[in-house]
Amino acid sequence: MKNSLTAPPIVTVDAVLLTIAGNELCVALHKREAAPFAGHWALPGGFIHTQEDDSAKAAAARVLRDKVDVQSPYLEEFGSYSGPVRDPRGWSLTLVYYALVPVVSARITLFPVNRLPNLPFDHGQIVSAVVERVRSKASYSSLPVHLCPEEFTIAQLHAAYELVLGERINMANFRRKLADLDLLEPVSGLLRSAGRSRPSQVYVVRKKYRDRLSVRDRGL
Amino acid sequence: MKNSLTAPPIVTVDAVLLTIAGNELCVALHKREAAPFAGHWALPGGFIHTQEDDSAKAAAARVLRDKVDVQSPYLEEFGSYSGPVRDPRGWSLTLVYYALVPVVSARITLFPVNRLPNLPFDHGQIVSAVVERVRSKASYSSLPVHLCPEEFTIAQLHAAYELVLGERINMANFRRKLADLDLLEPVSGLLRSAGRSRPSQVYVVRKKYRDRLSVRDRGL
Repeated sequence: MKNSLTAPPIVTVDAVLLTIAGNELCVALHKREAAPFAGHWALPGGFIHTQEDDSAKAAAARVLRDKVDVQSPYLEEFGSYSGPVRDPRGWSLTLVYYALVPVVSARITLFPVNRLPNLPFDHGQIVSAVVERVRSKASYSSLPVHLCPEEFTIAQLHAAYELVLGERINMANFRRKLADLDLLEPVSGLLRSAGRSRPSQVYVVRKKYRDRLSVRDRGL
Repeated sequence: MKNSLTAPPIVTVDAVLLTIAGNELCVALHKREAAPFAGHWALPGGFIHTQEDDSAKAAAARVLRDKVDVQSPYLEEFGSYSGPVRDPRGWSLTLVYYALVPVVSARITLFPVNRLPNLPFDHGQIVSAVVERVRSKASYSSLPVHLCPEEFTIAQLHAAYELVLGERINMANFRRKLADLDLLEPVSGLLRSAGRSRPSQVYVVRKKYRDRLSVRDRGL
């Protein structure tokens, strides 16, 4: 194998876990225990364990489970970052996965995506690129629904879309686009009231869209 | 490093090079020289050479240059395939890149994507998935233009879209969508005649879209 002439690359997976907290889009960071950059906040990540992981995606799911105690139903490959200088240990390749979740575990520390500390490796660049992708995808798909709890009102979902897109969305338009996505199922007889407003119908995501996106051919 | 407890994965890149030949969408295959599957047709691929490659994408470009003598201006990461059983040598991860090119080199062997031989590893599944992605992307972007030579007529581009999408496209609609994409620049004074028809204007792709896509918000 030609490979033996040259050092093999270091291969890792990293996970960008997005959620909403304090009315902001946030990313989960993890304090690194080992060198390089021990003690620094960074994306939860790690090596692929070839003895236990069935795929790179399974490795990313394991890292999320072990490091931030989160199981995400929506975990998608974002892409790779690679090269000779991104890791002080040598030529490295990381496969980046991203996840959107509603509930955060006690073992998670969240940072608003707009006010991140300096992150080691190229993690700052990775978070920015993922947020941009999520924003662009959100405009024509059901993606932000994964930020909502299992049962939610239209107002909650509307707020999740506004936070991801970073702009106001007209509620009448929003309801129309939602109808196109064919995403929601009312929970029979379940209403919820927020403050003094009229009680609102509670919804869940149709089963077929719980682990994949519903996509429309036009942006919101 | 935890990594030392477990064998590291085998890491490769593979390239799906698509082009048009004989009025069909074709993929370039390469006869494997080394085990496993020596003598079998497979996707051009190989190990990352950490001493010379600046990134995984650079490794894919090198493989295309070395194995099928093609330099592609449009080379995009498709995604990873990984796991314990896809390669008889052990747990492996391959990063798949795809490219669309107009001209084929003499060192290339093309197979229509609809009539492939049995391919080793998961290469058959990879080609199908890439073709599906290219099809879906073509419907709302300039992607098929990379199958055309540097200078082309609207009829040639129309034919490329029809071949990728696998269906007839109404020419009047096609011209309207093309206008939306803002993709083309007429070559001043250059007309081309095909057979007995009236000579047609020749176009090139606007400079800004030669290495990236133009995208519209609705499918063709």
